[in-house]
Amino acid sequence: MPRVITFGEIMLRLSPEGFNRLFQNDKLCATFGGAESNVSVSLANFGINTAFVSKLPQNAIGEAAIKTMRYYGVDTSLITRGGNRVGIYYLEKGASQRGSVCVYDRSHSAIQEACDSDFNWNDIFRDADWFHFTGITPALGENISNICKNACKIAKDKGITISCDLNFRSKLWTKEKAKEVMTEICNYVDICIANEEDAKNVFGIEAKNTDIYSGKISIDGYKSVAKQLFDTFGFKKIAFTLRESISASENKWSGLLFDQSGCFLSKQYFINIVDRVGGGDSFGAGLIYSLLSNKNNQDAIEFATAASALKHSIEGDFNLVTLEEVNRLVNGDGSGRIQR
Amino acid sequence: MPRVITFGEIMLRLSPEGFNRLFQNDKLCATFGGAESNVSVSLANFGINTAFVSKLPQNAIGEAAIKTMRYYGVDTSLITRGGNRVGIYYLEKGASQRGSVCVYDRSHSAIQEACDSDFNWNDIFRDADWFHFTGITPALGENISNICKNACKIAKDKGITISCDLNFRSKLWTKEKAKEVMTEICNYVDICIANEEDAKNVFGIEAKNTDIYSGKISIDGYKSVAKQLFDTFGFKKIAFTLRESISASENKWSGLLFDQSGCFLSKQYFINIVDRVGGGDSFGAGLIYSLLSNKNNQDAIEFATAASALKHSIEGDFNLVTLEEVNRLVNGDGSGRIQR
Amino acid sequence: MPRVITFGEIMLRLSPEGFNRLFQNDKLCATFGGAESNVSVSLANFGINTAFVSKLPQNAIGEAAIKTMRYYGVDTSLITRGGNRVGIYYLEKGASQRGSVCVYDRSHSAIQEACDSDFNWNDIFRDADWFHFTGITPALGENISNICKNACKIAKDKGITISCDLNFRSKLWTKEKAKEVMTEICNYVDICIANEEDAKNVFGIEAKNTDIYSGKISIDGYKSVAKQLFDTFGFKKIAFTLRESISASENKWSGLLFDQSGCFLSKQYFINIVDRVGGGDSFGAGLIYSLLSNKNNQDAIEFATAASALKHSIEGDFNLVTLEEVNRLVNGDGSGRIQR
Amino acid sequence: MPRVITFGEIMLRLSPEGFNRLFQNDKLCATFGGAESNVSVSLANFGINTAFVSKLPQNAIGEAAIKTMRYYGVDTSLITRGGNRVGIYYLEKGASQRGSVCVYDRSHSAIQEACDSDFNWNDIFRDADWFHFTGITPALGENISNICKNACKIAKDKGITISCDLNFRSKLWTKEKAKEVMTEICNYVDICIANEEDAKNVFGIEAKNTDIYSGKISIDGYKSVAKQLFDTFGFKKIAFTLRESISASENKWSGLLFDQSGCFLSKQYFINIVDRVGGGDSFGAGLIYSLLSNKNNQDAIEFATAASALKHSIEGDFNLVTLEEVNRLVNGDGSGRIQR
Amino acid sequence: MPRVITFGEIMLRLSPEGFNRLFQNDKLCATFGGAESNVSVSLANFGINTAFVSKLPQNAIGEAAIKTMRYYGVDTSLITRGGNRVGIYYLEKGASQRGSVCVYDRSHSAIQEACDSDFNWNDIFRDADWFHFTGITPALGENISNICKNACKIAKDKGITISCDLNFRSKLWTKEKAKEVMTEICNYVDICIANEEDAKNVFGIEAKNTDIYSGKISIDGYKSVAKQLFDTFGFKKIAFTLRESISASENKWSGLLFDQSGCFLSKQYFINIVDRVGGGDSFGAGLIYSLLSNKNNQDAIEFATAASALKHSIEGDFNLVTLEEVNRLVNGDGSGRIQR
Amino acid sequence: MPRVITFGEIMLRLSPEGFNRLFQNDKLCATFGGAESNVSVSLANFGINTAFVSKLPQNAIGEAAIKTMRYYGVDTSLITRGGNRVGIYYLEKGASQRGSVCVYDRSHSAIQEACDSDFNWNDIFRDADWFHFTGITPALGENISNICKNACKIAKDKGITISCDLNFRSKLWTKEKAKEVMTEICNYVDICIANEEDAKNVFGIEAKNTDIYSGKISIDGYKSVAKQLFDTFGFKKIAFTLRESISASENKWSGLLFDQSGCFLSKQYFINIVDRVGGGDSFGAGLIYSLLSNKNNQDAIEFATAASALKHSIEGDFNLVTLEEVNRLVNGDGSGRIQR
Repeated sequence: MPRVITFGEIMLRLSPEGFNRLFQNDKLCATFGGAESNVSVSLANFGINTAFVSKLPQNAIGEAAIKTMRYYGVDTSLITRGGNRVGIYYLEKGASQRGSVCVYDRSHSAIQEACDSDFNWNDIFRDADWFHFTGITPALGENISNICKNACKIAKDKGITISCDLNFRSKLWTKEKAKEVMTEICNYVDICIANEEDAKNVFGIEAKNTDIYSGKISIDGYKSVAKQLFDTFGFKKIAFTLRESISASENKWSGLLFDQSGCFLSKQYFINIVDRVGGGDSFGAGLIYSLLSNKNNQDAIEFATAASALKHSIEGDFNLVTLEEVNRLVNGDGSGRIQR
Repeated sequence: MPRVITFGEIMLRLSPEGFNRLFQNDKLCATFGGAESNVSVSLANFGINTAFVSKLPQNAIGEAAIKTMRYYGVDTSLITRGGNRVGIYYLEKGASQRGSVCVYDRSHSAIQEACDSDFNWNDIFRDADWFHFTGITPALGENISNICKNACKIAKDKGITISCDLNFRSKLWTKEKAKEVMTEICNYVDICIANEEDAKNVFGIEAKNTDIYSGKISIDGYKSVAKQLFDTFGFKKIAFTLRESISASENKWSGLLFDQSGCFLSKQYFINIVDRVGGGDSFGAGLIYSLLSNKNNQDAIEFATAASALKHSIEGDFNLVTLEEVNRLVNGDGSGRIQR
Repeated sequence: MPRVITFGEIMLRLSPEGFNRLFQNDKLCATFGGAESNVSVSLANFGINTAFVSKLPQNAIGEAAIKTMRYYGVDTSLITRGGNRVGIYYLEKGASQRGSVCVYDRSHSAIQEACDSDFNWNDIFRDADWFHFTGITPALGENISNICKNACKIAKDKGITISCDLNFRSKLWTKEKAKEVMTEICNYVDICIANEEDAKNVFGIEAKNTDIYSGKISIDGYKSVAKQLFDTFGFKKIAFTLRESISASENKWSGLLFDQSGCFLSKQYFINIVDRVGGGDSFGAGLIYSLLSNKNNQDAIEFATAASALKHSIEGDFNLVTLEEVNRLVNGDGSGRIQR
Repeated sequence: MPRVITFGEIMLRLSPEGFNRLFQNDKLCATFGGAESNVSVSLANFGINTAFVSKLPQNAIGEAAIKTMRYYGVDTSLITRGGNRVGIYYLEKGASQRGSVCVYDRSHSAIQEACDSDFNWNDIFRDADWFHFTGITPALGENISNICKNACKIAKDKGITISCDLNFRSKLWTKEKAKEVMTEICNYVDICIANEEDAKNVFGIEAKNTDIYSGKISIDGYKSVAKQLFDTFGFKKIAFTLRESISASENKWSGLLFDQSGCFLSKQYFINIVDRVGGGDSFGAGLIYSLLSNKNNQDAIEFATAASALKHSIEGDFNLVTLEEVNRLVNGDGSGRIQR
Repeated sequence: MPRVITFGEIMLRLSPEGFNRLFQNDKLCATFGGAESNVSVSLANFGINTAFVSKLPQNAIGEAAIKTMRYYGVDTSLITRGGNRVGIYYLEKGASQRGSVCVYDRSHSAIQEACDSDFNWNDIFRDADWFHFTGITPALGENISNICKNACKIAKDKGITISCDLNFRSKLWTKEKAKEVMTEICNYVDICIANEEDAKNVFGIEAKNTDIYSGKISIDGYKSVAKQLFDTFGFKKIAFTLRESISASENKWSGLLFDQSGCFLSKQYFINIVDRVGGGDSFGAGLIYSLLSNKNNQDAIEFATAASALKHSIEGDFNLVTLEEVNRLVNGDGSGRIQR
Repeated sequence: MPRVITFGEIMLRLSPEGFNRLFQNDKLCATFGGAESNVSVSLANFGINTAFVSKLPQNAIGEAAIKTMRYYGVDTSLITRGGNRVGIYYLEKGASQRGSVCVYDRSHSAIQEACDSDFNWNDIFRDADWFHFTGITPALGENISNICKNACKIAKDKGITISCDLNFRSKLWTKEKAKEVMTEICNYVDICIANEEDAKNVFGIEAKNTDIYSGKISIDGYKSVAKQLFDTFGFKKIAFTLRESISASENKWSGLLFDQSGCFLSKQYFINIVDRVGGGDSFGAGLIYSLLSNKNNQDAIEFATAASALKHSIEGDFNLVTLEEVNRLVNGDGSGRIQR
């Protein structure tokens, strides 16, 4: 079975109950999540052998993060222990015209303060077939972006496929810094994943005729974006998630996959949102699973899009759907009927 | 006041909070429900004298099931006590493209292991005007389908109206077995109730031009189904619920009633779903109430459909709406405004 | 900074969890709210100096009401202490075709039994720029409507702007009584606020071609209503909220502002409702804020409508959105995207 | 089977979670209770036929009160419907040195505003063997104390046994008023029940050498109290609960029964308190059950004391223990071991 | 690192919130537990390599049971998948004189219906050093007791240490059957663990001068029990937990260890109980850990007793305390002070 | 009315429900607390004018901390806004032999990174009569200990009474560092407050014959400690809390006050603990209140001890008891009886 290594930060996620605002009452729901760990959990749910690499402190919060990943079947044996804290993000769910609010309290986390010697990539990549991370990882700081580059280099040498979700976070770094670092890193990347804004934010490459705030998306625009990305970085494949935000409660969702053979557009889903955090990560996992399963391009983008459409119906960061559920949706049953 | 006897299984229903998946956290909501008990509760809410007949064990779970029915005004004095367990079903609420999940743990329940001598139908039917059950009851096992047939025979002899909701459950029996048993039972039935799939599943009679997964429903198709059912069983009336599943969050819902005088189609409701379990049962109860109240066919189907549309906004199996609320909707106010 | 005085009743609000019916289980959510206190909290959230005037008993419930207002930054130092009880309202959230249910248990509250000497309006209005109340306050009883008239007289003498939201409540008084009292009071009022039903209910002035239950609203009809109100009372401005109730889950929402210079219609929002109680109050607060901030008429109605559209996404009576969130929506971002 | 009628008020009880103070957060637990309804529920749990007589409004709160009693097997068919509100009491659980806090909001309840014609005692007492009420019922107001006296008169004429728990409530009436009214009523009473303070509070008859706040209780003192009560009212039996309050978390609890044949003291229990409200009511119910079951005096006081000791381990007003559990404790097993 | 295999049933445990009775409200807390799985979790918490052997169905409940064990670090790879259901036990927490209630709904579970071929003991015992099970496992049925005997035989052959906790369950089998089966099995056992009742219940060997219901325990009595057990079965060591049940809230707890060198009595703890289920299992795990760590007899019994004393302060079946916490208590700090 | 300024850190406190371990499930209770803010809230509850000085960030967590203090009547207008984060502490409640666990995640909080210019002490102390802080404040870092010294100097100049609770925290600094800094600061202090360990930890001054882990406390030992402290620092008064930790569930609690006139020992309370965090702070607040109210030494120590005994029955850091409740306990009623 193929083995996928992901590298990044897992945080404690604190959310108020239902649609309450943060601290509207005294209850918080404590779960864990973070882009790369979300991908690993999703892959484990699809039956893929996957390990998450990070650094977590020797305290009750670090313990719980590891146990939670283990609960979902992720190999946590490669996680370095040490450092002072688990990063936190507060997530308040939006509704209708009110957007979700994300408050980061992630500075000084163990992974942000990790150093080169915390990770032995030759050991980590033993038996690995795929290496995945997102733009959040290098955004955590100079030390981490260097570690990340180094990891890419070693992975490349070992012939491991490298995928990267651009995942721009304006609260972590500037567009200028992102462009500088990601340009260097993307030279190692085989599979590039992005949402409808990332290419513009990170590389200044914009989809024409697309205004994400008004919900209009132009496929032609994305073709031109893909072409520029292919030309610049020599990616093997580029995949986009296309979110049309009607409101915080309702979105349209589809996916686009490009490679040298052409452009593959998935079905579009109209989504009643339960929790949209991790939507992009579940798409990435769906895509990795599809490519590891040797699906063709159209099937791959359909699977990735269906998997991530379903994620929007799941509470928390992790995409807790089964292979069977994704396949049922890919095969056309999005009616939400009960099986009994 | 007319008296309605229902016969079947009531189960413990265990559901995670909100849109969580089963066991996503450690909280379960414990309520009770089951097709026939749902009908009795609904009738009691409309002011009808109704008793539920079943078998429940002498333990805390059996006690709670009985008390809950009593809470809602159902006569529980005809329930036989004994046996080993209350059946359980786990219900995970779906959302958007993710369908609800129903996991049965109902084998070996007291009612499934009941025997003939557990029920004295001559006593049970004293003062009764109506006998209702669904296709789930005979599907519980050979012993129960025999008891059910016997009950029908005695009810028939006493001139009691018999209604049956076909309610096919593929996890309980095969289509072949269902056809065999239900064909015999339906000879006793006066009022047949079915959803958009039952006639096909149970009797192989399919509505033309209807694909429930794509959400297309053809009234003409149902006319032909009704005709075949009338011809085969001599029902007095046949009623269908017509669910168009847009997704697990949004459905369209309407009802169709047939008798010799023609076909009566209700208004169609666009529904934002809170909990769709028990939707069909609330339709059955609405129809029984309507017919006991001597409503004409159009009024009857409108009442049954409005009652069951409202059920979709209620948590749990039971339809906890009042007569006044159903009548307000029948009279055209589906605006959801607050009265204050 | 301008200072706004509001006068009315704050109640304990008891709501079941989620979409449960009242007493469907044993959990109630206890918050506080009431039209005028809602306006004060909303203004305080926008940074306005505001005090709420009322009477509350010397017990744990009165204490909690005061502390809660203080939590949100409202000046509670003008509240008279005494009397026997805090009024209660039970609020059951509706969904789809099932409307919300509001059960009042507010008789004999401290404010309802207050007397003239409980309020020294000369002191209360020291440093005040604006006085706001709604039609609920005079509806609490003869004593309160007299206190309210007296307060208006003194405010008028002091050159304080007076705003009144007609807010008709059929459970508190008859249309006839409302017309009699509100006619007298409205002579003092500068800014009149109403929803799509109030003018008809209170003054018998009806918008032509509008049927709120079918969701059709005619702007021309409201122009004629406004004209009649201007002619009768000499208001400086009149503002309407226009709710088109598709169902308890989905509404359309817009606002209309009239003054001698013309009619100003806001953008319309399609709303997925979290909690619609206090929607009108948040509109009133948005309007008061806009006028105190010297916004022009179009900007004022846009701000008030956006603020109140956002209220529908907030649990409880109070509109807990920030100035920044309202401005973002006014500026066109209703996409509900996460900022991160 | 004997039939017991109880008469009084059932209230909505609102309690914060766990040991939180009132309104420390926004969650309240909503249950129902009141002295006489508590007795009826307890008797129903012991298998006794019992009906509760009261007046409750036609709204969601009145409905829920009735349904809750029905849940526990109490006959609610004698309850008059009407009036405006269900009384409320807020109950904050104490711990250690901090006593429980009870805030009443019960004025103007339906039963408090009931009139003579609301109850047809000749009908109510049909088939009745026992009539029970407590000192709270006459304390509700002049009208209710008159109704209560009248009920006693009719019960006496019909040869029905009358029991009364003195249950003094200083928040409802003065000691002087209590003495005046209860003196008249006690002339009809056969079985008098009181706690360690009631005889002193109501009749000024004090147990010597007893200081309930220091936790010292003298049996001899109670003998003298009993003698005086026998002499004044001619009761057949007098029973006392003896609570030694170590703290809000730990109490000692025993019972004393007197009749002409002597004084019978129960075993004393050391109690870790879960919820002490309704402790006295559960004692009354235990005593009534015992006497209806023809237990001898010692067995009766042991049963009543054991039943009420167990009540302290149950959340809410109602004593939800089974006959079997009480008998096990009477027979000496208070070890709290699990049966498995 | 030594490796411990445990074999038995893991069940879904459903408990009401706090001290509520079963179904007193609609909330249940869903966790997992069972004697042998409890031992494995406890050992994993102490850092021991441990695998749990059982059979669990391919459904959401079986999945969750496995994931939960994995969360706590137990190797679940030896669990056979199949069968129909996960057994359930309802656990209502007692308080004061009211004992905890345990309702079993465990018949027909996957493990109860397992057959010989479901387990390949030669594979299972690869690398194993210790085999542990309790008297519950053979009590599950003839098939399981045979599988258990067979496993013992193979373990014996491989030189694996075998420990058995007698754990008599009267709801699973009779004393006669237990004696017959356990006598045969105990011939394989090296380390015998029992509570204060088991030797009497299973083998009819009673500690003199001990009445567990009155809370009196005689060490001399246990010496004689141990002697008889040694003589009959040739155990290497016998350990007893000694529970003195003051009430469901307060217990005294100590341990006794015997081998040929003598009798070793632990310190006794006065315990305020949070949850006593799994107390014995945590003792067994503590003992196994101690013996695998080569502690001397006195240290071993102190560790096992301290570990299990701490278990009583933990919610759920599993003993979630750390090695460090047990050692701190062993070293005398039971003051419960906060470290900060 | 006297005005008390407190200075320190307020943190977000995250606790699992009930007696669950941290992250045992996904629910956390989010409140706020910290030594000095606890004192301010307590004083506000007693009716004292009090302001809390600190630095808190401009985000949702900082907002909530301020609003919460305002809710309880603390003047928050002197709080500096800025910095990056609110410190967090995770608090897991202990029981029986298992101690509470406190995990700090407070590094890099806004107050820890505050600088001199963040506080204008001349403004802050306007109208102030008393300045209170604890040893935690200077332990936050060099910058804060300097700010604290400077504040003391200015307070001294203005003739403001200064109180300091030694409050040693080993997770914040070493004993050596604490001794160095506190020695300097204590020269400004008038009233010194300490628990049974602080004098030893901070100044190496130990009470003879006292072993806090075994629960033995010697008054004579404390006399000698007090003498040494008086001699070294010239305090006006020294007060000790004396906690005898029987277990995490049960403590004994008393207080000792020294001044030149002698030694005053309070009554001792046996406490069933709900939440012991903030016990010392509530003692400090009780003492400050007593001295500001001119109570004599004996009355002062009785009030402070009673107030803090009651704190142990309150969830969260804050002592939410009323003056009346403390006075009732001082006057001897610790029986925990309900007033009704």
